[in-house]
Amino acid sequence: MSARTITVKENILGANKEKAEINRKLLTDHHILMINLMSSPGSGKTSLIMRAINRFKDKYRIAVIEGDIASSIDADKIRHQNVPAVQINAGGGCHLDAMMIKKALDSMDLDRIDLIFLENIGNLVCTADFDLGAHKNVVLLSVPEGDDKPRKYPVVFLDADVILINKVDVSPYFDFNLDAFPEMISSLNPSAEIFPVSAKTGEGMDRWFSWIEETLK
Amino acid sequence: MSARTITVKENILGANKEKAEINRKLLTDHHILMINLMSSPGSGKTSLIMRAINRFKDKYRIAVIEGDIASSIDADKIRHQNVPAVQINAGGGCHLDAMMIKKALDSMDLDRIDLIFLENIGNLVCTADFDLGAHKNVVLLSVPEGDDKPRKYPVVFLDADVILINKVDVSPYFDFNLDAFPEMISSLNPSAEIFPVSAKTGEGMDRWFSWIEETLK
Repeated sequence: MSARTITVKENILGANKEKAEINRKLLTDHHILMINLMSSPGSGKTSLIMRAINRFKDKYRIAVIEGDIASSIDADKIRHQNVPAVQINAGGGCHLDAMMIKKALDSMDLDRIDLIFLENIGNLVCTADFDLGAHKNVVLLSVPEGDDKPRKYPVVFLDADVILINKVDVSPYFDFNLDAFPEMISSLNPSAEIFPVSAKTGEGMDRWFSWIEETLK
Repeated sequence: MSARTITVKENILGANKEKAEINRKLLTDHHILMINLMSSPGSGKTSLIMRAINRFKDKYRIAVIEGDIASSIDADKIRHQNVPAVQINAGGGCHLDAMMIKKALDSMDLDRIDLIFLENIGNLVCTADFDLGAHKNVVLLSVPEGDDKPRKYPVVFLDADVILINKVDVSPYFDFNLDAFPEMISSLNPSAEIFPVSAKTGEGMDRWFSWIEETLK
Protein backbone atom coordinates (compact mmCIF):
# COMPACT_ATOMS: atom_id res chain seq x y z
CA MET A 1 0.00 0.00 0.00
CA SER A 2 1.20 3.53 -0.73
CA ALA A 3 1.61 6.13 2.04
CA ARG A 4 -1.38 7.98 0.61
CA THR A 5 -3.56 4.87 0.76
CA ILE A 6 -2.56 4.35 4.38
CA THR A 7 -3.41 7.96 5.30
CA VAL A 8 -6.84 7.75 3.64
CA LYS A 9 -7.45 4.48 5.47
CA GLU A 10 -6.45 5.98 8.84
CA ASN A 11 -8.78 8.93 8.33
CA ILE A 12 -11.68 6.66 7.39
CA LEU A 13 -11.07 4.35 10.36
CA GLY A 14 -10.71 7.31 12.77
CA ALA A 15 -14.03 8.83 11.70
CA ASN A 16 -15.65 5.40 11.87
CA LYS A 17 -14.33 4.79 15.39
CA GLU A 18 -15.94 8.01 16.65
CA LYS A 19 -19.31 6.98 15.25
CA ALA A 20 -18.87 3.48 16.68
CA GLU A 21 -18.43 4.96 20.17
CA ILE A 22 -21.68 6.90 19.70
CA ASN A 23 -23.45 3.66 18.72
CA ARG A 24 -22.02 1.83 21.73
CA LYS A 25 -23.11 4.56 24.13
CA LEU A 26 -26.60 4.65 22.60
CA LEU A 27 -26.92 0.89 23.09
CA THR A 28 -25.50 0.94 26.61
CA ASP A 29 -27.87 3.78 27.59
CA HIS A 30 -30.73 1.54 26.45
CA HIS A 31 -29.31 -1.47 28.36
CA ILE A 32 -28.84 -3.36 25.10
CA LEU A 33 -26.03 -5.84 24.47
CA MET A 34 -24.90 -5.91 20.83
CA ILE A 35 -22.84 -8.88 19.64
CA ASN A 36 -20.96 -8.59 16.33
CA LEU A 37 -20.69 -11.96 14.53
CA MET A 38 -17.94 -12.27 11.94
CA SER A 39 -16.87 -15.19 9.74
CA SER A 40 -16.21 -16.38 6.21
CA PRO A 41 -19.22 -16.85 3.95
CA GLY A 42 -21.10 -20.00 4.92
CA SER A 43 -19.61 -20.58 8.38
CA GLY A 44 -23.07 -20.61 9.90
CA LYS A 45 -23.75 -17.15 11.33
CA THR A 46 -27.46 -17.18 10.49
CA SER A 47 -27.98 -20.72 11.81
CA LEU A 48 -26.25 -19.75 15.03
CA ILE A 49 -28.50 -16.71 15.44
CA MET A 50 -31.57 -18.86 14.77
CA ARG A 51 -30.50 -21.24 17.57
CA ALA A 52 -30.09 -18.32 20.00
CA ILE A 53 -33.49 -16.92 19.01
CA ASN A 54 -35.14 -20.27 19.71
CA ARG A 55 -33.42 -20.51 23.07
CA PHE A 56 -33.90 -16.96 24.28
CA LYS A 57 -36.96 -15.50 22.55
CA ASP A 58 -39.23 -16.02 25.57
CA LYS A 59 -36.64 -14.59 27.97
CA TYR A 60 -35.05 -11.64 26.14
CA ARG A 61 -36.23 -9.23 23.48
CA ILE A 62 -33.95 -9.96 20.53
CA ALA A 63 -33.34 -8.04 17.30
CA VAL A 64 -31.00 -8.71 14.41
CA ILE A 65 -29.06 -6.47 12.04
CA GLU A 66 -28.21 -8.37 8.86
CA GLY A 67 -25.25 -7.24 6.77
CA ASP A 68 -24.97 -8.56 3.23
CA ILE A 69 -23.56 -7.54 -0.12
CA ALA A 70 -26.85 -8.30 -1.82
CA SER A 71 -30.17 -10.03 -1.06
CA SER A 72 -32.28 -10.23 2.08
CA ILE A 73 -32.31 -14.04 2.38
CA ASP A 74 -31.07 -14.03 5.98
CA ALA A 75 -33.24 -11.16 7.23
CA ASP A 76 -36.27 -12.93 5.76
CA LYS A 77 -35.39 -16.10 7.69
CA ILE A 78 -35.09 -14.12 10.94
CA ARG A 79 -38.37 -12.22 10.45
CA HIS A 80 -40.07 -15.55 9.89
CA GLN A 81 -39.30 -16.19 13.60
CA ASN A 82 -41.18 -12.98 14.53
CA VAL A 83 -37.93 -11.27 15.48
CA PRO A 84 -37.29 -7.77 14.11
CA ALA A 85 -34.49 -7.78 11.53
CA VAL A 86 -32.98 -4.81 9.70
CA GLN A 87 -31.24 -5.61 6.43
CA ILE A 88 -28.18 -3.62 5.34
CA ASN A 89 -26.90 -4.21 1.82
CA ALA A 90 -23.30 -3.03 1.44
CA GLY A 91 -23.40 -3.28 -2.37
CA GLY A 92 -19.87 -2.99 -3.73
CA GLY A 93 -18.31 -2.54 -0.29
CA CYS A 94 -16.76 -5.45 1.58
CA HIS A 95 -17.64 -4.27 5.08
CA LEU A 96 -20.22 -2.46 7.18
CA ASP A 97 -19.39 0.83 8.87
CA ALA A 98 -20.60 2.51 12.05
CA MET A 99 -22.80 4.96 10.14
CA MET A 100 -24.75 2.11 8.49
CA ILE A 101 -25.31 0.62 11.95
CA LYS A 102 -26.42 4.01 13.31
CA LYS A 103 -29.09 4.22 10.60
CA ALA A 104 -30.23 0.69 11.41
CA LEU A 105 -30.41 1.50 15.15
CA ASP A 106 -32.40 4.66 14.41
CA SER A 107 -35.03 2.53 12.67
CA MET A 108 -35.42 0.21 15.69
CA ASP A 109 -37.42 0.59 18.89
CA LEU A 110 -34.47 0.50 21.28
CA ASP A 111 -36.64 0.67 24.39
CA ARG A 112 -37.98 -2.77 23.53
CA ILE A 113 -34.74 -4.64 22.86
CA ASP A 114 -32.32 -6.46 25.21
CA LEU A 115 -29.99 -8.15 22.76
CA ILE A 116 -28.94 -7.40 19.19
CA PHE A 117 -27.08 -9.86 17.01
CA LEU A 118 -25.20 -8.04 14.28
CA GLU A 119 -24.53 -10.50 11.46
CA ASN A 120 -21.57 -9.02 9.64
CA ILE A 121 -20.73 -9.58 5.96
CA GLY A 122 -19.09 -12.93 5.29
CA ASN A 123 -15.48 -11.83 5.14
CA LEU A 124 -12.43 -12.44 7.34
CA VAL A 125 -10.50 -9.39 6.15
CA CYS A 126 -12.38 -6.09 5.77
CA THR A 127 -14.79 -6.67 8.64
CA ALA A 128 -11.91 -6.80 11.14
CA ASP A 129 -10.95 -3.15 10.68
CA PHE A 130 -14.31 -1.53 11.35
CA ASP A 131 -15.55 -0.99 14.89
CA LEU A 132 -19.34 -0.90 14.57
CA GLY A 133 -20.17 -0.11 18.18
CA ALA A 134 -20.84 -3.64 19.34
CA HIS A 135 -19.92 -4.64 22.90
CA LYS A 136 -18.51 -8.02 21.98
CA ASN A 137 -16.85 -9.47 18.90
CA VAL A 138 -17.49 -13.11 18.12
CA VAL A 139 -15.70 -14.91 15.29
CA LEU A 140 -17.05 -18.13 13.82
CA LEU A 141 -14.68 -20.54 12.19
CA SER A 142 -16.26 -23.69 10.79
CA VAL A 143 -14.53 -27.06 10.77
CA PRO A 144 -14.59 -27.44 6.95
CA GLU A 145 -12.59 -24.20 6.56
CA GLY A 146 -9.56 -25.68 8.31
CA ASP A 147 -7.66 -24.87 11.50
CA ASP A 148 -4.99 -22.78 9.72
CA LYS A 149 -7.28 -19.78 9.17
CA PRO A 150 -6.12 -17.76 12.23
CA ARG A 151 -2.57 -17.83 10.84
CA LYS A 152 -3.77 -16.70 7.41
CA TYR A 153 -6.32 -14.09 8.55
CA PRO A 154 -4.96 -13.05 11.95
CA VAL A 155 -6.53 -9.60 12.45
CA VAL A 156 -10.13 -10.70 12.88
CA PHE A 157 -9.05 -13.29 15.47
CA LEU A 158 -6.90 -10.82 17.43
CA ASP A 159 -9.85 -8.85 18.81
CA ALA A 160 -12.32 -11.69 19.23
CA ASP A 161 -13.89 -12.06 22.66
CA VAL A 162 -15.20 -15.47 21.64
CA ILE A 163 -14.19 -17.87 18.88
CA LEU A 164 -16.91 -20.36 18.01
CA ILE A 165 -15.75 -23.42 16.13
CA ASN A 166 -18.90 -24.36 14.26
CA LYS A 167 -19.94 -27.56 12.40
CA VAL A 168 -18.14 -29.87 14.86
CA ASP A 169 -20.73 -32.50 13.88
CA VAL A 170 -18.79 -33.07 10.63
CA SER A 171 -15.33 -33.08 12.25
CA PRO A 172 -14.81 -36.80 11.50
CA TYR A 173 -14.70 -35.88 7.79
CA PHE A 174 -12.19 -33.04 8.03
CA ASP A 175 -8.65 -32.54 9.35
CA PHE A 176 -9.43 -29.73 11.80
CA ASN A 177 -7.45 -30.38 15.00
CA LEU A 178 -9.93 -29.39 17.70
CA ASP A 179 -7.66 -30.47 20.56
CA ALA A 180 -4.70 -28.40 19.39
CA PHE A 181 -6.71 -25.32 18.41
CA PRO A 182 -6.70 -23.50 21.81
CA GLU A 183 -2.90 -23.67 21.91
CA MET A 184 -2.67 -22.53 18.27
CA ILE A 185 -4.80 -19.49 19.07
CA SER A 186 -3.12 -18.65 22.40
CA SER A 187 -0.15 -16.82 20.88
CA LEU A 188 -2.50 -14.66 18.81
CA ASN A 189 -5.25 -14.06 21.34
CA PRO A 190 -4.74 -15.64 24.76
CA SER A 191 -7.95 -14.21 26.25
CA ALA A 192 -10.44 -15.45 23.65
CA GLU A 193 -12.94 -17.98 24.87
CA ILE A 194 -13.26 -20.93 22.51
CA PHE A 195 -16.48 -22.90 22.20
CA PRO A 196 -16.77 -25.85 19.80
CA VAL A 197 -20.41 -25.97 18.66
CA SER A 198 -22.76 -27.28 16.02
CA ALA A 199 -25.55 -24.91 15.09
CA LYS A 200 -27.06 -27.84 13.18
CA THR A 201 -27.21 -30.47 15.96
CA GLY A 202 -27.09 -28.14 18.97
CA GLU A 203 -23.90 -29.74 20.32
CA GLY A 204 -21.90 -27.45 22.60
CA MET A 205 -24.46 -24.63 22.50
CA ASP A 206 -24.96 -24.55 26.28
CA ARG A 207 -21.56 -22.98 26.98
CA TRP A 208 -22.17 -20.38 24.28
CA PHE A 209 -25.65 -19.60 25.63
CA SER A 210 -24.26 -19.35 29.19
CA TRP A 211 -21.65 -16.89 27.95
CA ILE A 212 -24.42 -14.74 26.38
CA GLU A 213 -26.43 -14.79 29.62
CA GLU A 214 -23.39 -13.91 31.75
CA THR A 215 -22.56 -11.05 29.39
CA LEU A 216 -26.14 -9.76 29.49
CA LYS A 217 -25.99 -9.40 33.29
CA MET B 1 -20.85 4.87 -0.37
CA SER B 2 -20.36 8.56 -0.95
CA ALA B 3 -19.84 9.99 -4.46
CA ARG B 4 -16.24 10.75 -3.50
CA THR B 5 -15.63 7.15 -2.44
CA ILE B 6 -17.05 5.93 -5.74
CA THR B 7 -14.80 8.29 -7.74
CA VAL B 8 -11.70 7.18 -5.84
CA LYS B 9 -12.72 3.57 -6.40
CA GLU B 10 -13.24 4.14 -10.15
CA ASN B 11 -9.82 5.78 -10.47
CA ILE B 12 -8.13 2.94 -8.61
CA LEU B 13 -9.90 0.29 -10.67
CA GLY B 14 -9.13 2.11 -13.94
CA ALA B 15 -5.40 2.31 -13.17
CA ASN B 16 -5.43 -1.31 -12.07
CA LYS B 17 -7.16 -2.42 -15.28
CA GLU B 18 -4.41 -0.83 -17.41
CA LYS B 19 -1.72 -2.68 -15.48
CA ALA B 20 -3.72 -5.90 -15.70
CA GLU B 21 -3.75 -5.62 -19.51
CA ILE B 22 0.05 -5.25 -19.45
CA ASN B 23 0.32 -8.41 -17.33
CA ARG B 24 -2.00 -10.33 -19.66
CA LYS B 25 -0.02 -9.28 -22.74
CA LEU B 26 3.26 -10.21 -21.04
CA LEU B 27 1.91 -13.66 -20.23
CA THR B 28 0.39 -14.17 -23.68
CA ASP B 29 3.66 -13.14 -25.35
CA HIS B 30 5.36 -15.88 -23.31
CA HIS B 31 2.65 -18.43 -24.22
CA ILE B 32 1.66 -18.73 -20.57
CA LEU B 33 -1.89 -19.38 -19.37
CA MET B 34 -2.67 -17.77 -16.01
CA ILE B 35 -5.70 -18.97 -14.08
CA ASN B 36 -7.03 -16.83 -11.21
CA LEU B 37 -8.57 -18.94 -8.43
CA MET B 38 -10.98 -17.15 -6.11
CA SER B 39 -13.03 -18.41 -3.16
CA SER B 40 -13.88 -17.95 0.50
CA PRO B 41 -11.20 -18.89 3.02
CA GLY B 42 -10.94 -22.66 3.30
CA SER B 43 -12.80 -23.66 0.14
CA GLY B 44 -9.80 -25.69 -1.02
CA LYS B 45 -7.83 -23.54 -3.46
CA THR B 46 -4.44 -24.89 -2.37
CA SER B 47 -5.59 -28.52 -2.38
CA LEU B 48 -6.98 -28.03 -5.87
CA ILE B 49 -3.67 -26.59 -7.09
CA MET B 50 -1.78 -29.49 -5.51
CA ARG B 51 -3.99 -31.95 -7.45
CA ALA B 52 -3.28 -30.14 -10.72
CA ILE B 53 0.46 -30.10 -9.98
CA ASN B 54 0.44 -33.85 -9.41
CA ARG B 55 -1.48 -34.42 -12.62
CA PHE B 56 0.40 -32.05 -14.91
CA LYS B 57 3.89 -31.58 -13.51
CA ASP B 58 5.50 -33.98 -16.01
CA LYS B 59 3.61 -32.45 -18.94
CA TYR B 60 3.59 -28.69 -18.33
CA ARG B 61 5.89 -26.32 -16.51
CA ILE B 62 3.76 -24.96 -13.67
CA ALA B 63 4.28 -22.02 -11.33
CA VAL B 64 2.10 -20.61 -8.57
CA ILE B 65 1.50 -17.10 -7.25
CA GLU B 66 0.16 -17.27 -3.69
CA GLY B 67 -1.84 -14.36 -2.35
CA ASP B 68 -2.39 -14.18 1.39
CA ILE B 69 -2.98 -11.59 4.09
CA ALA B 70 -0.23 -13.08 6.21
CA SER B 71 1.97 -16.23 6.34
CA SER B 72 3.53 -18.36 3.61
CA ILE B 73 1.90 -21.66 4.60
CA ASP B 74 0.51 -22.31 1.12
CA ALA B 75 3.61 -21.26 -0.84
CA ASP B 76 5.69 -23.55 1.38
CA LYS B 77 3.37 -26.48 0.54
CA ILE B 78 3.71 -25.76 -3.19
CA ARG B 79 7.51 -25.42 -3.11
CA HIS B 80 7.65 -28.77 -1.34
CA GLN B 81 6.40 -30.17 -4.69
CA ASN B 82 9.41 -28.61 -6.47
CA VAL B 83 7.15 -26.10 -8.19
CA PRO B 84 8.18 -22.44 -8.10
CA ALA B 85 5.86 -20.37 -5.90
CA VAL B 86 5.93 -16.62 -5.29
CA GLN B 87 4.27 -15.46 -2.08
CA ILE B 88 2.45 -12.11 -1.97
CA ASN B 89 1.31 -10.88 1.44
CA ALA B 90 -1.38 -8.22 1.12
CA GLY B 91 -1.11 -7.20 4.79
CA GLY B 92 -4.04 -4.97 5.69
CA GLY B 93 -5.52 -5.07 2.18
CA CYS B 94 -8.30 -7.48 1.29
CA HIS B 95 -7.28 -8.03 -2.33
CA LEU B 96 -4.34 -8.33 -4.70
CA ASP B 97 -3.80 -5.76 -7.43
CA ALA B 98 -2.23 -5.94 -10.88
CA MET B 99 0.96 -4.18 -9.74
CA MET B 100 1.61 -6.87 -7.10
CA ILE B 101 1.20 -9.50 -9.81
CA LYS B 102 3.55 -7.59 -12.12
CA LYS B 103 6.25 -7.66 -9.42
CA ALA B 104 5.69 -11.38 -8.93
CA LEU B 105 5.91 -12.03 -12.69
CA ASP B 106 9.11 -9.98 -12.90
CA SER B 107 10.70 -12.32 -10.34
CA MET B 108 9.82 -15.44 -12.38
CA ASP B 109 11.55 -17.05 -15.35
CA LEU B 110 8.66 -16.66 -17.80
CA ASP B 111 10.46 -18.48 -20.62
CA ARG B 112 10.25 -21.65 -18.57
CA ILE B 113 6.59 -21.61 -17.58
CA ASP B 114 3.45 -22.88 -19.37
CA LEU B 115 0.82 -22.49 -16.69
CA ILE B 116 0.46 -20.20 -13.67
CA PHE B 117 -2.10 -20.75 -10.95
CA LEU B 118 -2.80 -17.51 -9.13
CA GLU B 119 -4.26 -18.34 -5.72
CA ASN B 120 -6.14 -15.23 -4.72
CA ILE B 121 -6.85 -14.11 -1.15
CA GLY B 122 -9.72 -15.99 0.46
CA ASN B 123 -12.49 -13.47 -0.05
CA LEU B 124 -15.67 -13.40 -2.15
CA VAL B 125 -16.00 -9.61 -2.20
CA CYS B 126 -12.86 -7.53 -2.80
CA THR B 127 -11.15 -10.00 -5.10
CA ALA B 128 -13.98 -9.71 -7.64
CA ASP B 129 -13.26 -6.08 -8.50
CA PHE B 130 -9.59 -6.38 -9.39
CA ASP B 131 -8.50 -7.65 -12.80
CA LEU B 132 -5.02 -9.08 -12.22
CA GLY B 133 -4.21 -9.99 -15.82
CA ALA B 134 -5.23 -13.63 -15.68
CA HIS B 135 -6.75 -15.24 -18.78
CA LYS B 136 -9.40 -17.15 -16.90
CA ASN B 137 -11.29 -16.64 -13.66
CA VAL B 138 -12.21 -19.71 -11.67
CA VAL B 139 -14.38 -19.51 -8.56
CA LEU B 140 -14.44 -22.31 -6.00
CA LEU B 141 -17.50 -22.77 -3.85
CA SER B 142 -17.32 -25.62 -1.37
CA VAL B 143 -20.33 -27.71 -0.37
CA PRO B 144 -20.16 -26.78 3.36
CA GLU B 145 -20.53 -23.08 2.49
CA GLY B 146 -24.03 -23.60 1.09
CA ASP B 147 -25.62 -23.15 -2.31
CA ASP B 148 -26.99 -19.67 -1.54
CA LYS B 149 -23.60 -17.95 -1.84
CA PRO B 150 -24.01 -16.78 -5.48
CA ARG B 151 -27.13 -14.85 -4.42
CA LYS B 152 -25.30 -13.28 -1.48
CA TYR B 153 -21.97 -12.56 -3.22
CA PRO B 154 -23.00 -12.23 -6.87
CA VAL B 155 -20.14 -10.18 -8.36
CA VAL B 156 -17.41 -12.80 -8.11
CA PHE B 157 -19.68 -15.37 -9.77
CA LEU B 158 -20.71 -13.01 -12.62
CA ASP B 159 -17.31 -13.08 -14.32
CA ALA B 160 -16.35 -16.67 -13.59
CA ASP B 161 -15.35 -18.80 -16.58
CA VAL B 162 -15.57 -21.88 -14.37
CA ILE B 163 -17.30 -22.55 -11.08
CA LEU B 164 -15.86 -25.52 -9.21
CA ILE B 165 -18.07 -26.96 -6.51
CA ASN B 166 -15.50 -28.48 -4.19
CA LYS B 167 -15.81 -31.00 -1.32
CA VAL B 168 -18.61 -32.98 -2.99
CA ASP B 169 -17.35 -35.99 -1.00
CA VAL B 170 -19.08 -34.54 2.07
CA SER B 171 -22.32 -33.59 0.30
CA PRO B 172 -24.35 -36.25 2.19
CA TYR B 173 -23.76 -34.21 5.36
CA PHE B 174 -24.82 -30.82 4.00
CA ASP B 175 -27.90 -29.30 2.33
CA PHE B 176 -26.17 -28.08 -0.84
CA ASN B 177 -28.46 -28.87 -3.80
CA LEU B 178 -26.00 -29.99 -6.47
CA ASP B 179 -28.73 -30.87 -8.99
CA ALA B 180 -30.41 -27.47 -8.81
CA PHE B 181 -27.19 -25.43 -8.76
CA PRO B 182 -26.69 -25.03 -12.54
CA GLU B 183 -30.18 -23.56 -12.89
CA MET B 184 -29.61 -21.30 -9.86
CA ILE B 185 -26.47 -19.93 -11.45
CA SER B 186 -27.86 -19.61 -14.97
CA SER B 187 -29.63 -16.29 -14.39
CA LEU B 188 -26.42 -14.80 -12.98
CA ASN B 189 -23.88 -16.31 -15.33
CA PRO B 190 -25.27 -18.55 -18.08
CA SER B 191 -21.89 -19.23 -19.71
CA ALA B 192 -19.98 -20.48 -16.64
CA GLU B 193 -18.91 -24.09 -16.77
CA ILE B 194 -19.74 -25.92 -13.54
CA PHE B 195 -17.66 -28.85 -12.34
CA PRO B 196 -18.49 -30.66 -9.08
CA VAL B 197 -15.18 -31.94 -7.68
CA SER B 198 -13.44 -33.19 -4.58
CA ALA B 199 -9.83 -32.09 -4.27
CA LYS B 200 -9.60 -34.56 -1.40
CA THR B 201 -10.81 -37.75 -3.12
CA GLY B 202 -10.13 -36.75 -6.73
CA GLU B 203 -13.79 -37.16 -7.71
CA GLY B 204 -14.77 -35.14 -10.79
CA MET B 205 -11.26 -33.85 -11.41
CA ASP B 206 -11.07 -35.25 -14.97
CA ARG B 207 -13.51 -32.70 -16.41
CA TRP B 208 -11.62 -29.86 -14.69
CA PHE B 209 -8.27 -31.17 -15.94
CA SER B 210 -9.68 -31.54 -19.48
CA TRP B 211 -10.86 -27.93 -19.35
CA ILE B 212 -7.33 -26.82 -18.36
CA GLU B 213 -5.79 -28.79 -21.22
CA GLU B 214 -8.29 -27.45 -23.75
CA THR B 215 -7.64 -23.91 -22.55
CA LEU B 216 -3.87 -24.42 -22.77
CA LYS B 217 -4.15 -25.30 -26.51
